Amino acid sequence: MELNLVTRNKNKAEEFKHYLEPDITINHIDIEYREIRAETNETVAKEAARELANQLKKPVVVEDSGFFMDAYDGFPGVYTKTVFTKLGCRGLLKLLQGVENRTVKYKSVIAYCEPGDIPHLFAGEEEGTMAEEERGTLGWGEDSLFIPKENNPEQKTYGEMRQPGENLFRGRAIKRLREYLLSRNP
Amino acid sequence: MELNLVTRNKNKAEEFKHYLEPDITINHIDIEYREIRAETNETVAKEAARELANQLKKPVVVEDSGFFMDAYDGFPGVYTKTVFTKLGCRGLLKLLQGVENRTVKYKSVIAYCEPGDIPHLFAGEEEGTMAEEERGTLGWGEDSLFIPKENNPEQKTYGEMRQPGENLFRGRAIKRLREYLLSRNP
Repeated sequence: MELNLVTRNKNKAEEFKHYLEPDITINHIDIEYREIRAETNETVAKEAARELANQLKKPVVVEDSGFFMDAYDGFPGVYTKTVFTKLGCRGLLKLLQGVENRTVKYKSVIAYCEPGDIPHLFAGEEEGTMAEEERGTLGWGEDSLFIPKENNPEQKTYGEMRQPGENLFRGRAIKRLREYLLSRNP
Repeated sequence: MELNLVTRNKNKAEEFKHYLEPDITINHIDIEYREIRAETNETVAKEAARELANQLKKPVVVEDSGFFMDAYDGFPGVYTKTVFTKLGCRGLLKLLQGVENRTVKYKSVIAYCEPGDIPHLFAGEEEGTMAEEERGTLGWGEDSLFIPKENNPEQKTYGEMRQPGENLFRGRAIKRLREYLLSRNP
């Protein structure tokens, strides 16, 4: 079977391929789409998938993710993309200067939708801490700051280790999508 | 004439009274209303006014404002309320630690709408800088950090000086609203 993934992000497409191929072939649709401003990543992903499925007249998948800093009541959460564009790693590091609690949660939400149907959601999470300085150049955004908690004995940042399959939060969401798709089309 | 101002904020109602009474009487409607997530304060105010006018079946005024830091490409702008709730003055001060350019612009947007009509917009702006530490307890939000540029020989923060009528950006927007209302109902 084939899956239509809408994203401008090549790395994201690679991650989906890593977890889904060869059973499910990724058709990467590299177009811009409208995102609504909502309170949660779930709503953003759901509404985008619904709109794109109807517009493209085929089943689509979109992904929306964010990180939630404990020291700032889950900021930036659903605003991650906008906030990162404005603040960058420089601003995030300043926000955490002298802050003891550097724990952070990452969340990925995938919405799968067929034209005229309601979207199905699959989420994955991962905990970690924010580094004291940028490390590594892999990945994108604030990957050079995020030190995942699990499977990370050397306390590397995503920027130092990020290969498809090492990103647990998105991987977990993709695996849940995979189970769903394969159970429907075994 | 009477003007229906919808806001949860008592201070805001006082500012409107300061500029508009006795010519225009403020009817303060203290209810919660839905705000859409948009890219600009203009859109937020416009859509809220349109919805409230139709819902309450009378002409209404709402105000939406934000501050825009030059060092961070206008952050937090339209996200001011949400961001301030999460970061507080503590977070804003951290963001500006060691940052040379502390200039900031404040903007107020007022939307006036009659039921079934399109909203009319009135804006006011004011420039200033962000203080190195909180000063004063008047006003709300990050008022204790904002040092307005104009009419401020002692370089006070809004938190140290804020009385109705000393807040230029909102005052400017209210004066424009006033001119409009009086020209229609002289």
